Amino acid sequence: MTVWISRRPDAQVAAELAESRCGEGALAGMRVAVKDNVDVAGLPTTAGCPQFAYLPERDAPAVAALREAGAVVVGKTNLDQFATGLVGTRSPYGVVPDSRRPEFISGGSSSGSAVAVATGAVDIAIGTDTAGSGRIPAALQGLVAIKPTVGVVSTAGVVPACESYDCITIFATSVDLAGRAMAVMAERAAARVWPADTVLSAPAAPVVAVPNELPELDRQWRAAFDRAVERLVAAGARTVSVDIAPFLAAAKLLYDGALVSERYAAVGEFVDAHPGASLDPTVKAIVSAARDIPAHVLVRDRAEVARLRTAAMAVIEDADALLLPTAPMHPRISEVTADPVGVNSRMGTYTNFCNLFDMCAVAVPAGTAGDAQFGVTVLARAFEDAVALDIAGLLHDGAPPADAWPQAVADHVELVVFGAHLFGGPLAHQLTDLGARFVGEITTAPRYRMTVLPTTPAKPAVTRVSDDAAGAALAGHRWLLSPASLGRFLAALPAPMQLGKVEFEDGSWRTAFGCDGSARGADISRYGGWANALAAGAVRQT
Amino acid sequence: MTVWISRRPDAQVAAELAESRCGEGALAGMRVAVKDNVDVAGLPTTAGCPQFAYLPERDAPAVAALREAGAVVVGKTNLDQFATGLVGTRSPYGVVPDSRRPEFISGGSSSGSAVAVATGAVDIAIGTDTAGSGRIPAALQGLVAIKPTVGVVSTAGVVPACESYDCITIFATSVDLAGRAMAVMAERAAARVWPADTVLSAPAAPVVAVPNELPELDRQWRAAFDRAVERLVAAGARTVSVDIAPFLAAAKLLYDGALVSERYAAVGEFVDAHPGASLDPTVKAIVSAARDIPAHVLVRDRAEVARLRTAAMAVIEDADALLLPTAPMHPRISEVTADPVGVNSRMGTYTNFCNLFDMCAVAVPAGTAGDAQFGVTVLARAFEDAVALDIAGLLHDGAPPADAWPQAVADHVELVVFGAHLFGGPLAHQLTDLGARFVGEITTAPRYRMTVLPTTPAKPAVTRVSDDAAGAALAGHRWLLSPASLGRFLAALPAPMQLGKVEFEDGSWRTAFGCDGSARGADISRYGGWANALAAGAVRQT
Repeated sequence: MTVWISRRPDAQVAAELAESRCGEGALAGMRVAVKDNVDVAGLPTTAGCPQFAYLPERDAPAVAALREAGAVVVGKTNLDQFATGLVGTRSPYGVVPDSRRPEFISGGSSSGSAVAVATGAVDIAIGTDTAGSGRIPAALQGLVAIKPTVGVVSTAGVVPACESYDCITIFATSVDLAGRAMAVMAERAAARVWPADTVLSAPAAPVVAVPNELPELDRQWRAAFDRAVERLVAAGARTVSVDIAPFLAAAKLLYDGALVSERYAAVGEFVDAHPGASLDPTVKAIVSAARDIPAHVLVRDRAEVARLRTAAMAVIEDADALLLPTAPMHPRISEVTADPVGVNSRMGTYTNFCNLFDMCAVAVPAGTAGDAQFGVTVLARAFEDAVALDIAGLLHDGAPPADAWPQAVADHVELVVFGAHLFGGPLAHQLTDLGARFVGEITTAPRYRMTVLPTTPAKPAVTRVSDDAAGAALAGHRWLLSPASLGRFLAALPAPMQLGKVEFEDGSWRTAFGCDGSARGADISRYGGWANALAAGAVRQT
Repeated sequence: MTVWISRRPDAQVAAELAESRCGEGALAGMRVAVKDNVDVAGLPTTAGCPQFAYLPERDAPAVAALREAGAVVVGKTNLDQFATGLVGTRSPYGVVPDSRRPEFISGGSSSGSAVAVATGAVDIAIGTDTAGSGRIPAALQGLVAIKPTVGVVSTAGVVPACESYDCITIFATSVDLAGRAMAVMAERAAARVWPADTVLSAPAAPVVAVPNELPELDRQWRAAFDRAVERLVAAGARTVSVDIAPFLAAAKLLYDGALVSERYAAVGEFVDAHPGASLDPTVKAIVSAARDIPAHVLVRDRAEVARLRTAAMAVIEDADALLLPTAPMHPRISEVTADPVGVNSRMGTYTNFCNLFDMCAVAVPAGTAGDAQFGVTVLARAFEDAVALDIAGLLHDGAPPADAWPQAVADHVELVVFGAHLFGGPLAHQLTDLGARFVGEITTAPRYRMTVLPTTPAKPAVTRVSDDAAGAALAGHRWLLSPASLGRFLAALPAPMQLGKVEFEDGSWRTAFGCDGSARGADISRYGGWANALAAGAVRQT
């Protein structure tokens, strides 16, 4: 069993699980595996090299976050040494084979974490992802993986691969569970400030860019991708065909260029100082070769990445997200043995560029390609993690998840609406275009009246009554949105509509729609809300 | 005359000036000098090396912006070769001496641009600034220089010094004029998106961090700095004493570390390929030595800069800005000749770290230190350029300028207030704490009434009247603020106040204070506004 490098005693895990299940943590009762380049207090961190091992005193913040939320660490998982590889074969602890077909690779570098979830040994697992190490094994093992925007989860306590681009990722079998785990880590182990205009949802009918060519994929794999696109369209997305040349060009730079010098900065001194260590020969060659790259070449390559990023962002400017195959193929272990660098490089075709471009991604399973499990990745711009998540949900489950994990950490405010901006209403797009997320229904305190204004479309005016006895309780919808989106929404709001505080039945005062006091209309308070008034034919919304 | 490397014909400049003066450009009639590492169509760009020269077909975007706004280019100015230096002595076109005392240095690398403004040859000048090249000569020549947040003005058409950290700067004799020129460049030559919560002003009583030690300054220079601090306090600022060790540590990294490899990336191939070129020996030595720095050392130094930045930002966390001497001394030319590297390095003590930390800065003159002109710099966090500008105005002119140039480019919205949030009112701080900027008075269309609510403090309710004939025109104050600030302000606004559109006397509808229709109070419309009602004793604001 090459999945694990170290495990906590079964009895201890069982005892903690029993206790956790009685708790109220967001991840109560969840077993978690941790990739062995991430610190867990009391277990050695090897990064896939026994001689490199050290015994950390503290959990990495991401691990601590999951534990505080009730997750129980089962053990540390095997990986491509120093997280250098996408294959799962580069480890002195043994090759991690595919969970279903042992002559095939698991994918890596988070090989053990992915297989631990795929086999049901744990519920969730922490991986890391610099060039695709969290996404590739998810695809090959039929899992969901969330690769957040670089830096939104702290990489403190992680052995760096390429420090500028490393990310913590999560594996799970559902978008929902992966999102819950991300919420916990993003909130408690944050390391980058979210913008004041962070979007909290994808549009209801998102525009998804798809490549006009699919290099490295054979006919079966192309057909699998086409089926995923069809499923996404059937679920409500619109697709646009794009040329992904700048993405592919940056993917090549990650390994072929000077950026690999970050790997030498991370572990090069160890590699040089320990010629007798159990080093994977491919990993050793990659790290050692990075020693003598001149700094001015790195400067040049970083500038080239910046230029390619600008070009790439222009390619997807009119789209909410980009859909790509996660891996282009599922190689046999023997194929990797025969050509360890070449196969690995091709595996990263659709993943390598992502962190260089400061993009976020959600990898989801998408059927099969022949006997192989097939996966696709939804990629979005930095901090548009909610967009990637919603579209991944659309593809995987036919609908976005109820919550988007950036809610847990990105600054946001709430707006309650009563009329044309109700979810599904004719003006709701004004809110979804601003990245607002519908999160449920709510009813005012019984101290308001609703009149219908002679506007187009018809709108309700909600006003507090002076005489408490004469008031009605009115149904509204809650939207979460960024502070900037609320400001922009208000700046575009025409008279006589106003926004201010309204009292709700739970005693809370929330920002909601009001109206200038001069507005006049027929009283429809007796219907208890706009939807009822519409259903009763008391108002017409055209 | 070593100020100029090339000049446009006097007659042509005069003709363009005459035409410009009849125009309505924001910089109509302004003569501008351009540092000779920035492209002006039809004049050679030498970067201070005749053999490097090329003839650009197009203006750099920053130059084009100034010209579109009416500025007339007089010529290209001398500089420390390849913008490498803070002294103004490193040029085959000759040493640029101080404008007042010719045995002293001008400061560099934007030596010619600074002296051209100081001598009145032009009204404004473009400089560049990587380590202090825009600020140091401003200090020594008694000028204002704005060094904006990295990237907010495009460096396209600029010969790179260290591409990641290069900035376009502006020299002028007043904060106001420098700000106007920045507004033009930032709007028309933008290259970085401003955040949705950009602050547009400093607080009325800003908190300014000052160093608890002043290395490299002699007694006279320390006294000059102390006087500047006293003047700032007299103008309304509060100071806090801080330890600037992380700032000083980063300053050393810019020249002593691997970051200098960016200079090799910029011009190293030229230097290597042209052994016979008129290369300044110090510049040549710096560039050549950067060739063999390994990339992994650059990775390590960049990580160290990131760590120091975190520490530095923590030092000024409770302050709006940091006040430093711009230069620590004013050396003689002979002193630089005797120790070209050592003196240059000491000159950058208080400037080198700035761009590494993604900070913005405004350098202003602040009296004299002995016979030398003395200058200080107000530094602020990325995108807080308005804060730095306002505090610089406070120090230089006793008051912030009327406009802050980020208004020209950062997304913002407007809010009109009528009561306690009027400029100077008891709740105005709620707006200034959010970075809102007061920009003037305005009067509603004569279709509103004002009542006084029994709140604490007392607040006016402004409501549109149903009968136009019964309405009053009410005086209000206009605030500009970021979309996120408007959203946060609304989210914190208590009932019964609301925000929505109000009609103004110019026919415009603007976001302004309204009120829930149930609110009742005495009608004070006849006073035409809150200030008049207060003055008449009709309301009391406690």
